[in-house]
Amino acid sequence: MLRNLQIDGARLLARLKALGQLGAIAGGGVCRLALTDDDRAGRDLVVGWMRELGLTVSTDAVGNVIALRQGKEDGAPVMMGSHIDTVRTGGIYDGNLGVLAGLEVVASLNDAEIVTRRPLAVAFFTNEEGSRFQPDMFGSLVYTGALPLERALATIGIDGGVVGEELSRIGYAGSTAVGKPNVHAYVELHIEQGPVLEEGQFRIGAVEGVQGISWTEFTLNGQSSHAGATPMRMRHDAGYVAAEITAFVRRLAQDFGGNQVATVGLLTLSPNLINVVPDQALMTVDLRNTDEECLKEAERRLFAFVAETSAAEGVRVSHRSLARFEPVDFAPHLIARVEAIAREFGLPVKRLPSGAGHDAQILAAVCPACMIFVPSVNGISHNVTEYTKPDDLAAGANVLLRLVTELAE
Amino acid sequence: MLRNLQIDGARLLARLKALGQLGAIAGGGVCRLALTDDDRAGRDLVVGWMRELGLTVSTDAVGNVIALRQGKEDGAPVMMGSHIDTVRTGGIYDGNLGVLAGLEVVASLNDAEIVTRRPLAVAFFTNEEGSRFQPDMFGSLVYTGALPLERALATIGIDGGVVGEELSRIGYAGSTAVGKPNVHAYVELHIEQGPVLEEGQFRIGAVEGVQGISWTEFTLNGQSSHAGATPMRMRHDAGYVAAEITAFVRRLAQDFGGNQVATVGLLTLSPNLINVVPDQALMTVDLRNTDEECLKEAERRLFAFVAETSAAEGVRVSHRSLARFEPVDFAPHLIARVEAIAREFGLPVKRLPSGAGHDAQILAAVCPACMIFVPSVNGISHNVTEYTKPDDLAAGANVLLRLVTELAE
Repeated sequence: MLRNLQIDGARLLARLKALGQLGAIAGGGVCRLALTDDDRAGRDLVVGWMRELGLTVSTDAVGNVIALRQGKEDGAPVMMGSHIDTVRTGGIYDGNLGVLAGLEVVASLNDAEIVTRRPLAVAFFTNEEGSRFQPDMFGSLVYTGALPLERALATIGIDGGVVGEELSRIGYAGSTAVGKPNVHAYVELHIEQGPVLEEGQFRIGAVEGVQGISWTEFTLNGQSSHAGATPMRMRHDAGYVAAEITAFVRRLAQDFGGNQVATVGLLTLSPNLINVVPDQALMTVDLRNTDEECLKEAERRLFAFVAETSAAEGVRVSHRSLARFEPVDFAPHLIARVEAIAREFGLPVKRLPSGAGHDAQILAAVCPACMIFVPSVNGISHNVTEYTKPDDLAAGANVLLRLVTELAE
Repeated sequence: MLRNLQIDGARLLARLKALGQLGAIAGGGVCRLALTDDDRAGRDLVVGWMRELGLTVSTDAVGNVIALRQGKEDGAPVMMGSHIDTVRTGGIYDGNLGVLAGLEVVASLNDAEIVTRRPLAVAFFTNEEGSRFQPDMFGSLVYTGALPLERALATIGIDGGVVGEELSRIGYAGSTAVGKPNVHAYVELHIEQGPVLEEGQFRIGAVEGVQGISWTEFTLNGQSSHAGATPMRMRHDAGYVAAEITAFVRRLAQDFGGNQVATVGLLTLSPNLINVVPDQALMTVDLRNTDEECLKEAERRLFAFVAETSAAEGVRVSHRSLARFEPVDFAPHLIARVEAIAREFGLPVKRLPSGAGHDAQILAAVCPACMIFVPSVNGISHNVTEYTKPDDLAAGANVLLRLVTELAE
């Protein structure tokens, strides 16, 4: 009976849409920044569902919520989960799918009156997106001990809000010890957020790991001058140097090939006027690779190019690291099971790395962990037009159900 | 006696400083956008000085103010002038120097009780900067007939103000026929706004002409996508294309050499986030050359590169021309006289083109015209730190005095 069990795709979709109404924005998107009133409303809704499903809900000091389902035996649960905070112009799937699919797995087991040997858990972790409080994957970092609780609670957000105060304000400063319970295995269902599965007509991604991430902010200071009256040889053009760095970043990614990606997403010139040579450029470089040595080499080449090009133009440069995560490999036996289950279900499956950061990469430090991806239409996420087809949502949740029930036996 | 006549540098500087108090901003700069209350205050002050000097002041329908000094004979006057509007964060010299040095020439002739054969005129033209109303050199374009009066009066500014209404509001919708009087010759003293004179320790610039200007705005539309999850080969990165264009623009200027300058001063990315491939870039390209054929060739190469690079990245591109002026040559005999007078005065002098636009280039269509430049410290203008040494201001005004009295005999 367990092997034929299927989740209810319509029920899953209804929960996704109901949660997506909280903090809804124009165009079908959602804005539920962590620990805001909208986040509280979303948390209250999900916690209500957890209780309706008979789960035992606990909240820790950083607002991570863990809902437990008893097994036939005690011990560490098999955990499903993700996050329910969003970016400022997010969609209704990112994060939410992993949590609500976990609830759907529980609901399906409840309906079939199946009790697994090990306990199950459905978790959502605080402030995964990092849009309001830095760093991202905030709650899971505290959960695994990588971010000290005191520092986390004192963190100040982009709007001046303090994590500890905001947790109290919205009623999610919980009393459960951080990092409890221990986890037997962690499985996170998530949208791909990229175009690779859709392009290859795959329906399931067996995620091999998460790319290492290197985020650097560069501030370039030249000298503003009249665009007509200043000969080229006398310029100290911060915008020009930023452009050369941006073009170099593309060549760097092409030279490395493989899974290397490199992006200049943010570039702001000053004074940003048509007829003034820019005196300042603020820019970011986002480098990602599945191989730590490659990532380090990419960073070395980038810094060498920035130094050389800035010096040649007479532009001063300073930089700071905004984020640095080493690549994470997921548990090989779990990756293999995702792939095998998908094949058994007749779902075209592809192994791929995750280019985005996820709570699963943090949990991987304390337990076997893996992720299941479903396709993002046009590869779009962090956008109100983020969309995954209902059949793919259900397919992913069914793979989750099968894998989790296996792991719980 | 006329040959030994000198202007009063202290009096000139006092007027510059007094006018600079109107619309003064922090750091020693000034904000007197055209046809604002501050511009009215500046106009009232200068018109008061004109009347004190015995000049006959007239205002035309677009607010150009012409102050006439009788000569021994009637006829077309030798005109000095410039503008007194400023950019939003301007200095006290740009434009104002040409007008107030004209008044200083008149004051010095008054003091010496000298009447020239031809009449003299001191003019300031409306909205030269173009910071509030497009195009720049607005008043002189109307004066010479290049911009129809009706269109000028209907022009809407960046703040929604309409030229005709604003002229009436501040009391400068004059009754004099536009384009009167005819001008015998036009001489404009101005700060260089670039670093060339200072670098070579020249004190006077004999301006050969004004570079042709080509301003183009490009809008690049790609597709935003996740910086981690989108493989390089699947990107349509508008920011990357903008960077390649910016780097190309520099190479273009270097390839052309000579007086070619090329600048990307404005570049705005969207959504401008560290981890999102930009879907849109808005940018401007400013090309200037003293040779119209070179300028056209630079435009051709730019457009070809933009089309090719955008297509290769799968980015759509649209463009519009924001300004296009052909190069203007000043009258050779006047340039030669500026050079000769400076040498006679022992002032190191250099022939150079103007990279900035000026009313003199517009007047050049209707009479022999030329400009005299004085050095800008650090080449800075359109900035509160704009500065020219008092000795250089006086030197420029003395060359103006000599040239104008010659032309009026």
